[in-house]
Amino acid sequence: MTLCGWVESKRDHGGAVFIDLRDRYGLTQVVVGPPEADTQAIESAGRIPTESVILIKGKVTDRLEGKTNEKLATGEIEVRSDHVEILNSCANPPFTPSQADLPGEDLRLKYRFLDLRRKEMQQGLILRSKIIKTMRDYFAEHDFIDVETPILGRSTPEGARDYLVPSRVHAGKFYALPQSPQLYKQILMVAGFDRYVQVAKCFRDEDLRADRQPEFTQLDLEMSFVDADDIMGLIDGLVARTAKEVLGKEVKTPLPRMTYDEAMRRYGHDAPDLRFDMEIVDVTSVAAKTDFRVFRATADAGNFVRGMNVKDAATKYSRRQIDELTDFVKEFGAKGLAWFRVEDDGTLWSPISKNLDPAHLTEIKELLKGEPGDLLMFLADTWEVTCKGLYALRKRLGAELKLYNSDQLDCSWITEFPMFEKDEETGNWSAMHHPFTAPLARDLSKLAEDPRACRAQAYDLVINGSEAGGGTIRIHDSKTQQQVFELLGIDEATAEDRFGFLLNALRYGAPPHGGIALGVDRWVMLLAGLDNIREVIAFPKTQKAADLMTEAPGNVDTAQLNELYLRTVGIKPSESK
Amino acid sequence: MTLCGWVESKRDHGGAVFIDLRDRYGLTQVVVGPPEADTQAIESAGRIPTESVILIKGKVTDRLEGKTNEKLATGEIEVRSDHVEILNSCANPPFTPSQADLPGEDLRLKYRFLDLRRKEMQQGLILRSKIIKTMRDYFAEHDFIDVETPILGRSTPEGARDYLVPSRVHAGKFYALPQSPQLYKQILMVAGFDRYVQVAKCFRDEDLRADRQPEFTQLDLEMSFVDADDIMGLIDGLVARTAKEVLGKEVKTPLPRMTYDEAMRRYGHDAPDLRFDMEIVDVTSVAAKTDFRVFRATADAGNFVRGMNVKDAATKYSRRQIDELTDFVKEFGAKGLAWFRVEDDGTLWSPISKNLDPAHLTEIKELLKGEPGDLLMFLADTWEVTCKGLYALRKRLGAELKLYNSDQLDCSWITEFPMFEKDEETGNWSAMHHPFTAPLARDLSKLAEDPRACRAQAYDLVINGSEAGGGTIRIHDSKTQQQVFELLGIDEATAEDRFGFLLNALRYGAPPHGGIALGVDRWVMLLAGLDNIREVIAFPKTQKAADLMTEAPGNVDTAQLNELYLRTVGIKPSESK
Repeated sequence: MTLCGWVESKRDHGGAVFIDLRDRYGLTQVVVGPPEADTQAIESAGRIPTESVILIKGKVTDRLEGKTNEKLATGEIEVRSDHVEILNSCANPPFTPSQADLPGEDLRLKYRFLDLRRKEMQQGLILRSKIIKTMRDYFAEHDFIDVETPILGRSTPEGARDYLVPSRVHAGKFYALPQSPQLYKQILMVAGFDRYVQVAKCFRDEDLRADRQPEFTQLDLEMSFVDADDIMGLIDGLVARTAKEVLGKEVKTPLPRMTYDEAMRRYGHDAPDLRFDMEIVDVTSVAAKTDFRVFRATADAGNFVRGMNVKDAATKYSRRQIDELTDFVKEFGAKGLAWFRVEDDGTLWSPISKNLDPAHLTEIKELLKGEPGDLLMFLADTWEVTCKGLYALRKRLGAELKLYNSDQLDCSWITEFPMFEKDEETGNWSAMHHPFTAPLARDLSKLAEDPRACRAQAYDLVINGSEAGGGTIRIHDSKTQQQVFELLGIDEATAEDRFGFLLNALRYGAPPHGGIALGVDRWVMLLAGLDNIREVIAFPKTQKAADLMTEAPGNVDTAQLNELYLRTVGIKPSESK
Repeated sequence: MTLCGWVESKRDHGGAVFIDLRDRYGLTQVVVGPPEADTQAIESAGRIPTESVILIKGKVTDRLEGKTNEKLATGEIEVRSDHVEILNSCANPPFTPSQADLPGEDLRLKYRFLDLRRKEMQQGLILRSKIIKTMRDYFAEHDFIDVETPILGRSTPEGARDYLVPSRVHAGKFYALPQSPQLYKQILMVAGFDRYVQVAKCFRDEDLRADRQPEFTQLDLEMSFVDADDIMGLIDGLVARTAKEVLGKEVKTPLPRMTYDEAMRRYGHDAPDLRFDMEIVDVTSVAAKTDFRVFRATADAGNFVRGMNVKDAATKYSRRQIDELTDFVKEFGAKGLAWFRVEDDGTLWSPISKNLDPAHLTEIKELLKGEPGDLLMFLADTWEVTCKGLYALRKRLGAELKLYNSDQLDCSWITEFPMFEKDEETGNWSAMHHPFTAPLARDLSKLAEDPRACRAQAYDLVINGSEAGGGTIRIHDSKTQQQVFELLGIDEATAEDRFGFLLNALRYGAPPHGGIALGVDRWVMLLAGLDNIREVIAFPKTQKAADLMTEAPGNVDTAQLNELYLRTVGIKPSESK
C-alpha cells in the first residue's frame, strides 16, 4: 500500500524508525526497519524533519501483542515500509500542531496553516461542514430554493455600521456589504419564490466582542403565506435533525416556547439558559408589608424585590464570597444583594433577618420554596436592574455550581417581543428587531395608541442561554410599513429614498411573509461545545478585525485610490504604521 | 381547499369570473360563479386588480369537456370558489410578468420583483438552485469539506482590479474582496484538509462585458496528493451527474481531452466549439509551391495558409455574402479571405483559381477533403491571425448554417497550456493561468531555459465552445515558486511582502496539490440554454455595475467617510449626479 501524510513524530528504537504519519483521517504508525528496509532507508527516515510531507510504501501488519494503541483509530495496525519518499521537507516551524503547550493565539493565527493541522481544529471545521450540509439537505427536502443575494449592495444608515466599497465607475458613490439579506429576501417573496434559503455571508463594522467577527455566516430563510408557528415548526425540525445527524442526540419537538414577558419575569433575560432551574421569584408583595427599610422603600416606589433560591448553597458561599457576589451585581446597577440562609429548623437567617417580621420571612421562604440548606438571594431595584442583575447572577452561579453539563443541549423559543424600545434620553423609538417586523394582529391598534405595549410577531431561538437565531413575520402592506417608519422617525421622503424599492414592492402584490436567520458560527460553536468562535472559522479576524496570516487590511497604491476618487485624510502618526 | 397566489389574469364570462391564479408551482383556473358564489362575491372578484395576492377557498372539479388547457400542469382541473379574499391589492404596475411585449431590461431590473415573477426567470433560478445542490451533494459524497474563506481579504495588485474596503480600525488601510479563494484553498491543503470545496463569491472591478458581473459565483475546489488526471476525472463525474440529474441527459465519460497545441491547430482557439466539425487544415506546404503571390509570400515569410471546408455551402454564400465574410475576418487582423467552390466536376473555382496550378488546386482540395458543393475558405497570415480569424469565422458559420442544435451539450478538456505569455511590447512575461501553477514535470528545466516552451499542468473545461472552468496543479515547493515569481518580475522582497504567508506555508510541509474553479453563473446559463448571464442571477448588476432596483452604489454621509479617514477627490461635475 501507499500512504501520504505528515510526520507528526518519530522515534528511533531498536534499529528501526517509528513514524506517526498523520493525514486527515488520523494517525498511522509506520515502521522503517529490518528486514524490509535497508540501512540507508532507515538512516534517511531518521533524518526526516517533523511536519514534513512523505509518501511511504509498505505492508499493513498487525501490531505486536501489547503494542496496540487504543487511542488511535488505526491503533491496531502498523505499516512496515521499505520505501519512504520526502515529498516536501519542513523547515523548523514556529510550533508544531501536536505540541502540548501551544503558543498564544496570535502566533497561531499568523501560522494558521500549522494551527489548522491540529486535530481539534480539523474536527471543528469538519463538524461545521456537516452541519451546513445537513441544513441544506433539510431545506431542499422542504422545497426551498437556494438563491444568492448580492454582496455589493446599498448602504442603509439603520442598524450597525456598514462596510463600504467605493465605486470606480460611479464617482463618489459607494456600495455597502450586507448586514443581512433582509430586503432581498423580502423582494424574493414579493416575486413569488415562496420558499427561499441561503447560507449567507453578512458583515458588520462594529467594535468587536469575543464572539463577533466582521464577517459572519447566517442561515437565512423566508417563506410566504405563513405565520410564526409555521416558521418555528420548520426550525424545530431542523434542530432535531441536526442534533440527531451531527451529534447523535435526540431533541424533543415541538421545542418549548415562552413569551418575552414570561422570560423576563422568570429569568430576567430574553435568552435564558434553561439547562437548569433557579427561577426568579417576585416577593414585592411581601416587601411592601415589611418594616425593612430597603424592601419597603423599593415597593413603595413602585419598584421590585425579586430573588432566586440557590438550592443547597447555604454552606457553599462564605460571607466573603457573598460580598464578592454583591460587588458583582453592583456592576449591573444593583445597590446591594440581600440574602438569607435557610437554617436546619427552616428559619431564614441573615444579617438583615432581624429587620423582618418572622411571618414575612416565612412568606418569602414559601414563595421561593426554600428548604434547609438553601441560599436565597434578592435584589431590590427597578424592573430593569433586577432583570439584569439576577440574570447575570443566575448565569454565574449556574456555571460556578455546575448546574448543567457541557454536553446538554437545551433549545427553546422566546416569542412576542416588544415592537419598539424607547431611548429614554432622546425619547426616540427604535425597532427591537428591525423596521420590517409586523406587530401581532391583536396589537395593531397599539401602533398608534401605545407603541410600548405593541408586541411583534417575532421569535428568537435560544440554545443553552445564547440567542442562536431570530426572525419575524414581516409587514406586507405599505401603509403599515409607512406607519412604522414614521414612528421610528423616518419621514416619507427619507423612507422613499432608502427603501423606495421595498415600499414599491409592497404596493405591487406582496404576499404575507416571514422568515428567520440563524447564526451559523454560533450554532457550530454551541454544537461543538466550544466557547471561542474563532475556532470554528477557518480564517478568522482578530478582535481588531485583522487577518494576521495575510496581514489584511493592508496598504494600497495611490493609483488605486485615484481610480476610486479617494484620498486618505486625518490619519494621526500614531494610527498609521 | 385553500389556495394562495397572484391574479395573473381574469375574464368575465357568462356571469362568472375566471381567474388564472399563479403560484410558484404554476397556474390554476379559479371560477367564481353561480351556484357556489353569490352575486356580491362575483362582483368583488371582478374588481380585483391583476397581480394582486388573493386567498381562495373552494372545491376542485374537472374542467368541462373541451375546456381543458394542455399547456398548464393543472390544465385539467379548475377550482370553483365561493370565497375570494384579497391579501394585498396590486397598484397599477409598470408592467405585468405575463404581458407578451416585455419592456426593456433596465425597467425590468428596476422592478425586479415583477420581472422575477416571470416563469422563465423562476425556472432559471430554480435550475440554478438544483445545479448547485447537485454539485454540493456530489462533493459531499466524495468526502470534500465545505470551508468558507474570507470575503474581507488582502489586496494583491496582480490580475484584475480589486474591489477595496476601507478599514475603520486600521487607519488608511484597506481590505480587498477576493478575486478567487486561490491562496486560502492552497493554505487549506498545507493545513492537511485534503479535499476542500466551496461555492464561493468572487469579485472583479473590471470593465464589464455582457457576460461578466462585478460579483460572480464559482465552484471552487482543491485536493492534495493528486495529479491533473485525478481532478479531470472527478469533474467528469460531476458533469455527467449534473447533466443527468438536472437535464436528464447522458454525457459519456471520460470527457475527451485535447492539448492546447492541438486545439489551436485544429480550431484556432483554446475553447473550441466541438458540437460541429469543420476543422482548420494547414495547406502552407502546398502554398509554398504555388505561383499565387499571396500564398507563396506568406509561406516564404514563415507564416501560414490555413483553411476550412464549409460543407455543402458553395451555393449558400453569394459573392456579396463572401465579401461580408471578408470584412468580418478583417476585424481580426486578416488581410483577406481566399475561397474556392468545389464544382460538380470536382475542380476548384474562384476568382483566384486561375493563378494556381491545377495540380496544386487538387492537392489543396484533397487536404480539405473537398467534395462537389463544398466551399473552401483560407487565411494567409501569421499563426495568431489565422487562429483568430478562422476561429471567429468557424463560430459565425456554425451558427449561421445551424451546424448544431441548441440542446446539444458538448463538454471536453483542453490541457497542457503554456505557462507564460510574453507581452511583445514590454518584453514582460505574465502567467497564463496564475503564478501558482506548476509546470509539467518534463518541462521543469525549460523554466530557466525556454519559458515560452514551458507547458503547465493546467486544464480547462470547455462546454459548447465556452470556457466553463479551469484549474491547475500548483507549485508545492518554495524554490520553484520563487523561480516563477522571478520570471514574472516579482522580486524577492515584493514576493515576501505580498505572498509571504504562502511562501512560508510551502516551507513548512506543503503537500502536492491542485484544484479547479468552475464558473457557476456560466454553467447555469449554458445548461439552461440562455445567453444572458443576468437571467440566471437573482439581483444582477448592469454593465455599469449598478443595481437599478436598490440604486446601488449610492451616496454616503460625510460622517461615514470621516470614520474611514477618507475624502472624495477629483470628481468632475459630469461624473457626479
